[in-house]
Amino acid sequence: MSIITLTTDFGTKDHFVGAVKGTIYSELPNARIVDISHHISPFNITETAYILKNAYKSFPEGSIHIIGVDSELNEENKHIALILDNHYFICPDNGVISLLASEIKPEKIVEINIHDRIETSFPVLDVFVKVACHIARGGTLEVIGKTILNFKQLVELQPSVSSDSSTISGNIIYVDNYGNSISNISKKLFQEIGKGRDFEVIANKYSFKKINTKYSDIIDFSVSKEQRQKDGTRLAIFNTANYLEIAMFRSNLNTVGGASSLLGLNYRDVITVKFS
Amino acid sequence: MSIITLTTDFGTKDHFVGAVKGTIYSELPNARIVDISHHISPFNITETAYILKNAYKSFPEGSIHIIGVDSELNEENKHIALILDNHYFICPDNGVISLLASEIKPEKIVEINIHDRIETSFPVLDVFVKVACHIARGGTLEVIGKTILNFKQLVELQPSVSSDSSTISGNIIYVDNYGNSISNISKKLFQEIGKGRDFEVIANKYSFKKINTKYSDIIDFSVSKEQRQKDGTRLAIFNTANYLEIAMFRSNLNTVGGASSLLGLNYRDVITVKFS
Amino acid sequence: MSIITLTTDFGTKDHFVGAVKGTIYSELPNARIVDISHHISPFNITETAYILKNAYKSFPEGSIHIIGVDSELNEENKHIALILDNHYFICPDNGVISLLASEIKPEKIVEINIHDRIETSFPVLDVFVKVACHIARGGTLEVIGKTILNFKQLVELQPSVSSDSSTISGNIIYVDNYGNSISNISKKLFQEIGKGRDFEVIANKYSFKKINTKYSDIIDFSVSKEQRQKDGTRLAIFNTANYLEIAMFRSNLNTVGGASSLLGLNYRDVITVKFS
Repeated sequence: MSIITLTTDFGTKDHFVGAVKGTIYSELPNARIVDISHHISPFNITETAYILKNAYKSFPEGSIHIIGVDSELNEENKHIALILDNHYFICPDNGVISLLASEIKPEKIVEINIHDRIETSFPVLDVFVKVACHIARGGTLEVIGKTILNFKQLVELQPSVSSDSSTISGNIIYVDNYGNSISNISKKLFQEIGKGRDFEVIANKYSFKKINTKYSDIIDFSVSKEQRQKDGTRLAIFNTANYLEIAMFRSNLNTVGGASSLLGLNYRDVITVKFS
Repeated sequence: MSIITLTTDFGTKDHFVGAVKGTIYSELPNARIVDISHHISPFNITETAYILKNAYKSFPEGSIHIIGVDSELNEENKHIALILDNHYFICPDNGVISLLASEIKPEKIVEINIHDRIETSFPVLDVFVKVACHIARGGTLEVIGKTILNFKQLVELQPSVSSDSSTISGNIIYVDNYGNSISNISKKLFQEIGKGRDFEVIANKYSFKKINTKYSDIIDFSVSKEQRQKDGTRLAIFNTANYLEIAMFRSNLNTVGGASSLLGLNYRDVITVKFS
Repeated sequence: MSIITLTTDFGTKDHFVGAVKGTIYSELPNARIVDISHHISPFNITETAYILKNAYKSFPEGSIHIIGVDSELNEENKHIALILDNHYFICPDNGVISLLASEIKPEKIVEINIHDRIETSFPVLDVFVKVACHIARGGTLEVIGKTILNFKQLVELQPSVSSDSSTISGNIIYVDNYGNSISNISKKLFQEIGKGRDFEVIANKYSFKKINTKYSDIIDFSVSKEQRQKDGTRLAIFNTANYLEIAMFRSNLNTVGGASSLLGLNYRDVITVKFS
């Protein structure tokens, strides 16, 4: 039985998530349901794509991912189901797929057309769950939708490279649980453009000449513990998702703050890499 | 094996939820446990009832619902287990059941009496889990309690209808994850009293002549995207639980605010429907 | 199949938890994964130990507990796996084990040495999950690490007893979901030193002559409900984890406040028991 994952902006207080899980278990008593996130900022497609992109690949191929963010059906927001990278996704056609997989082409996309049989104001529960259970039982996409060739493209913040390849300009696209500010500059892009040259990362008024591979790289272990300065030290790092991130060592948004609050690096803010 | 659901005010940081699940798995290695909510406001019976009422029906019949809100045993707060609408509920006799199912009569109620065998300051873990596992294994209620005929009635905020049926007066009973303000006026009551007449919904100083069936009904799709005003537009809607709700289109409590904060519509505030 | 539990400071918004679960399911399709907490304050070892200590014993023996707090590998923070109290723990050697089980000696400890085969900046996912799945499949610790005899000792806030046994001085070590301030003075220590003598608990400028066994012990049930003063009354209690706790009856941190905010009893603050 395939895994069904949930990525929504429902929060975990209201009845929404419980109702969705109850409905899945009613159809598939042996379902395996995994929460990816229910704390997406309401209607935030960029966050949805960032989180899901970095989570879905860890699941077995054939997993079914329900995306419940901005999913109300209307003439500009159809419902689609697709196979991408050997995973199934069921979601609104609101551009999230274009952000999720800019480099991977879906194998098959259908526009879900079971709505005429269902009157609903809660499509994740009434439509997406039905489609997910259909797929989990081995059903094909053609049964629940009509094949389409394209899905909505969303042009999101993209890093740009100067014509002489001396500079990459990117933006902060996500702030994580530790207040780390994550950019859209991937390690891959950095290496392709940089080709091993020296560089300087500039974010707000801060500059970094090194990109760490571990947070604790900034500790000088030859100095005794008492004499080290550690907490609150800023650093640039390629994070676990392989994006350039500005972090504060051992930050805590609820107390001392993180890079986002202390360095003023929030969503859409510019980050630049200058090669020399 | 029946599903066991959990609805509590424990939060998800402390050890409480983990300890409860560990205890269930220790008794029933193949248990299926589903979180409905652990973020009920502490001791809030009204919220508990609203959330559980809108979630439990999605689960298969025979599911077992543990309610861990205000559950300390004392002479005014007994523990009960019951069958209602073909679901099992295990909870304190604090009135939550009367709010959960004002129209449905429980089939059978017992006052749990296994406490003499258990000394505990954590009854959800030590008593409710034991009862849930007993039921999940096919045990009957009579074994763990003594049949009673009544449970505590809580008179909560109820909508009232004027004697000439010209007005329904209700109250906000819940604010959801998006800041939407949800009233206790059901679609059913609205239709029974309104009988298709014109109406005006009045909430604080705001008035609505229409009740939408979708949030995006307020968008004029004939106008180009750039020229539309969308975010932050207020509307009345029957929500997915079929209650009259006042909402802001695409609201976000953490940034722009929602109906609760922007329109000043919070718990207990009055909402009126005037028919003409 | 053993249960695998997760205790981390990842939060539940980001992709971290989803990615970890996906990886476990990819290796072990029938895994049973239970969240203990993902809301540990970032890098907080004391909180981790408090929460896990009060949760792990509820799980069946043989359960595997992954601790993902402050887990980056460096020369001062090795990765270890161990058997303790018939449970498995996989964690950084950062002292958390010494706080978790000050009185219990691990049966076996290994320093994990599969890192040479794995390059990672996300050790919980790439190392701890691998070790957990190995153990869940029945593998031995020796295969994934080299036996060691000691783990890092962390000297945390410990209660002290005056030389004449007239006083126990402790500290607040945790504030729970209700704002209750929990000390490191256990019921066991209290009884061993107190031997039934009269006492006074002093916390900040507040004094308590009684330690309750239930929160509702402070209610005088002989007085009619309307005339009782209840909410917001302060009390001392041995909590469900058997530690001395200062609480406000029916507190709510988001509205009226809890003992932590109203009485000013926060992490590290002193609490004293004087016997007479």
